[in-house]
Amino acid sequence: MGIGQQFIKATNSDMPQNAGREQGLQQPYLEVLYDGKSELVQIPEPDFLDDVEGSFLELIELRSSVRQYSGEEMTLKQLSLLLWCTQGVKMVTDRTVRNVPSAGGRHAFETYLLIRNVEGITPGVYRFLAIEHLLVKVGGEEMMNEIASRGCTQPIVQTASVVFFWAAQVDRMTWRFGERGYRYLMIDAGHICQNLYLTAGAIKFGACAIGAFDDNAMNEILGLDGENAFVLYGASVGK
Amino acid sequence: MGIGQQFIKATNSDMPQNAGREQGLQQPYLEVLYDGKSELVQIPEPDFLDDVEGSFLELIELRSSVRQYSGEEMTLKQLSLLLWCTQGVKMVTDRTVRNVPSAGGRHAFETYLLIRNVEGITPGVYRFLAIEHLLVKVGGEEMMNEIASRGCTQPIVQTASVVFFWAAQVDRMTWRFGERGYRYLMIDAGHICQNLYLTAGAIKFGACAIGAFDDNAMNEILGLDGENAFVLYGASVGK
Repeated sequence: MGIGQQFIKATNSDMPQNAGREQGLQQPYLEVLYDGKSELVQIPEPDFLDDVEGSFLELIELRSSVRQYSGEEMTLKQLSLLLWCTQGVKMVTDRTVRNVPSAGGRHAFETYLLIRNVEGITPGVYRFLAIEHLLVKVGGEEMMNEIASRGCTQPIVQTASVVFFWAAQVDRMTWRFGERGYRYLMIDAGHICQNLYLTAGAIKFGACAIGAFDDNAMNEILGLDGENAFVLYGASVGK
Repeated sequence: MGIGQQFIKATNSDMPQNAGREQGLQQPYLEVLYDGKSELVQIPEPDFLDDVEGSFLELIELRSSVRQYSGEEMTLKQLSLLLWCTQGVKMVTDRTVRNVPSAGGRHAFETYLLIRNVEGITPGVYRFLAIEHLLVKVGGEEMMNEIASRGCTQPIVQTASVVFFWAAQVDRMTWRFGERGYRYLMIDAGHICQNLYLTAGAIKFGACAIGAFDDNAMNEILGLDGENAFVLYGASVGK
């Protein structure tokens, strides 16, 4: 039996799932906290984002994976909209309520951005502080180029205005659901990326999902341990 | 190391993935074929579906998981739209091109519907023939009630106009990606369900994703083997 099938069997609803909550463990933080030192970048608040009127069916039907980009710059407002629609936090209680759903409201992702061509932002690697709706700098162009050369070598990573990578923060999900939570992590990643596709379409950009990358290299470059935190999915966006 | 982490490690990009294509195996069928005997139900063609004009941000921001339904009937056109936007086939080549993306264009899902309250459709369990844009009957009210009583006992399954269950057809995905394909199955399920949320919102219905169910009971009732074919995700939709 392959590992995929083993995983599906072992996360069936009748198997013990070892959720941290059942063991009396405290809930993990709702996001990876800001270290208080790294450079912060302001982005427009959701209140100030431009809405788009349009045809619903067109939006859905015109979605396709776009792999050729003109290299045109993205505005800061457009980037802010993409972040808002994919991971934007509408409310914070004992959990976060976001524009995408998440199993048990766990929202166990951190968004990393490779920013190559966005108005007013120095190219480099950033992380989205979803609760604060801010960017925090993770690394410069060197880190971005390292990702493109050995983390994810698809050409779209070189030509997109911005590349999103969603890194799972496992304990946020397994605290509630145990091992079955790994299913929900992957499912949630799909929810997020579908909103990215549609939002990109709404502002006349193209997106392409990224499922193939060198997991170990990606995690190492971004400083993720590969166990509790690892890159699971991504997508490029360009004009 | 828990099974989730084992699965993630073993499906890292540097691990052998045992894809059928690499072993010279033939591509599996693009959908589970119609048996030629079961009752077919016509639904409106995509060409005849009503489009909806609206505000994009409102659509995204108003999404929430709706668990209380009025029991109002859904029209056949509305059901057709939900199916079209979640799994509708735009083109068939050696693969299918659909309104949602899928890793490698594999589209490894079959859509099962519990129809309780849709205009002109006898309540029961149906499967969507995505390529033909038709429904095929799988079982009657008895099967539907069995699912509600031991497959998925959440009250929304009793009160929704229609409940979607997406069953993975594993070989369609692993033929191309091997064991890593299991990741993509789950990710793809999220893409589909996000379009269901948004489409339901666009027609003023509410949806709620379903990740918790009795896997073994669901598969047994629907006649799925639980290995190559199994229910992975679902969602209820109601007014």
